[in-house]
Amino acid sequence: MTLKAALYMIPVAISDAPADDFIPRGNVELTRGIRHFIVENVRTARRFLRRCDKDFPIDDCTFTELNGHTDPNDISTMLDPLRRGEPMGMMSEAGCPGVADPGAAVASVAQREGLRVIPLAGPSSILMSLMASGFNGQGFAFHGYLPVHDDEKRRRVRELESACVKTGMTQIFIETPYRNNRTVKLIADTLNPSTLFCVASAITDPERESIVSLPASTWRRREYDYSKIPAIFLIHKSR
Amino acid sequence: MTLKAALYMIPVAISDAPADDFIPRGNVELTRGIRHFIVENVRTARRFLRRCDKDFPIDDCTFTELNGHTDPNDISTMLDPLRRGEPMGMMSEAGCPGVADPGAAVASVAQREGLRVIPLAGPSSILMSLMASGFNGQGFAFHGYLPVHDDEKRRRVRELESACVKTGMTQIFIETPYRNNRTVKLIADTLNPSTLFCVASAITDPERESIVSLPASTWRRREYDYSKIPAIFLIHKSR
Repeated sequence: MTLKAALYMIPVAISDAPADDFIPRGNVELTRGIRHFIVENVRTARRFLRRCDKDFPIDDCTFTELNGHTDPNDISTMLDPLRRGEPMGMMSEAGCPGVADPGAAVASVAQREGLRVIPLAGPSSILMSLMASGFNGQGFAFHGYLPVHDDEKRRRVRELESACVKTGMTQIFIETPYRNNRTVKLIADTLNPSTLFCVASAITDPERESIVSLPASTWRRREYDYSKIPAIFLIHKSR
Repeated sequence: MTLKAALYMIPVAISDAPADDFIPRGNVELTRGIRHFIVENVRTARRFLRRCDKDFPIDDCTFTELNGHTDPNDISTMLDPLRRGEPMGMMSEAGCPGVADPGAAVASVAQREGLRVIPLAGPSSILMSLMASGFNGQGFAFHGYLPVHDDEKRRRVRELESACVKTGMTQIFIETPYRNNRTVKLIADTLNPSTLFCVASAITDPERESIVSLPASTWRRREYDYSKIPAIFLIHKSR
């Protein structure tokens, strides 16, 4: 297969499930034609490629890291292979690159220069949690991480709850996994008892996946343990 | 494969590309174990199942429509097979069910009763356009359809542009395809010249896909024809 000269945005695993369970075959075939990758983490990226295709020619490939430590001035030169007409791939640590990760920066440079950017289908915890939550999918907002400190976190949760009431839009956000239990308790205690709160954890993991939407009042008396399990949070207020 | 008793949220095609290009194999295998489907449109759903698997036992399946014409009182009984312990599938007209379609209503009933809801990975024009736009993917909001009338549409576009400036979040919205050209012109003329505007059309279509991010001022003098092509719109203001 001859690939178009484009920056391909390649989704990666969000659990340890077999790759065929959440990655289209077409992605793997297409990726086989790419030799230059921009990745959030080289080790994760190489492991993912091997997992999709044990014969992937990893040693013939270049991997350039783009993450929180990258100097913004270094981003543009990462696209040099594409400027010469070679297809490139962008992969983040988990899920869809360009969403809730630093990958948008390189897509932005490509767009500015009129280079083609092509997104592939794959797993996204944001979208998949929304699909299963039963919350409003006609209007929703993703806000990234909650603030670290409890007081600011409570203030933010109240702001997001107000946005639910005002706009009807589902509000989606994340937390560092080791703080999950503490944060679920804080959110349940902060929200109005009737506000719906969804915790979606271990999405695509056939054994551990759990996506539960309940009123805040029910969460207050419920037992749970989301410690160190990747989770995403959604709130919704029926009007 | 014995499936869990769950409501599976099953993504479907958003273009005429081969199913393997955007649907994981695992989805097709899993779907083969389901006999009861809730679908936005029966004909589209049957055609999609045949396209993924020409031997799909369609005639052994029941299909119940859930769309804009459905009486909300009829939704709960649709889940009776699941209440008896049989796996069910939900499919919308295009893309991921529960997102920008009426499918969330049935997931909501399932969640209320403690029935399990499991989302599958697949193509979403909202997420894929965001991945390729180069716009902020750490914070974004989807607003559904723009208002029909030009005056209200202009007002809404200005509101969304203000939200970009205020929050930095990418603002995403859609339009009925036959109005696309008129709407692209209206948006380009309404936005501040430097505001970035992305038009993403025919996503996953190998021949026609186009995802272009440019300042509003460039869109004003650019030629395009998006008439009747499915498209999604994004705006972003660098801060």
